[in-house]
Amino acid sequence: MNKSIFYHAGCPVCVSAEHDIINLVGANNVEVVHIGEDKSRISEAEQAGVKSVPALVTPSGNTLHINFGASIEDVKG
Amino acid sequence: MNKSIFYHAGCPVCVSAEHDIINLVGANNVEVVHIGEDKSRISEAEQAGVKSVPALVTPSGNTLHINFGASIEDVKG
Repeated sequence: MNKSIFYHAGCPVCVSAEHDIINLVGANNVEVVHIGEDKSRISEAEQAGVKSVPALVTPSGNTLHINFGASIEDVKG
Repeated sequence: MNKSIFYHAGCPVCVSAEHDIINLVGANNVEVVHIGEDKSRISEAEQAGVKSVPALVTPSGNTLHINFGASIEDVKG
């Protein structure tokens, strides 16, 4: 299986969701990307349809917005 | 691992998220509950903190709202 990508920005909601997703899916199956620290990957997230974080982009390319931590616009600052 | 519970109401957003979650977590690890058809389980979902569907309640009791299909109030009709 290809990896999912979990985009987050370090917010409390993000960290909580990250723990849940890793427990459910397995750490080896998820790449975790902190777009607050690695802003070069914001455009990639936007192209995948990520509107807010935390969000999980599945191997099939679907974007699951999980709860709500911050909008992409807020992360861009 | 205890099962997660995926609450949904049959909406297109719900069905799409259900497929993604089952692919990610495995069908054996998720109980799927259609609270539009089985309204007796709405109160259980609310007690778990579900505000809208689709939502996944993890074995540790956290509620992950995934995208947005419908509010619980709408499902109650």
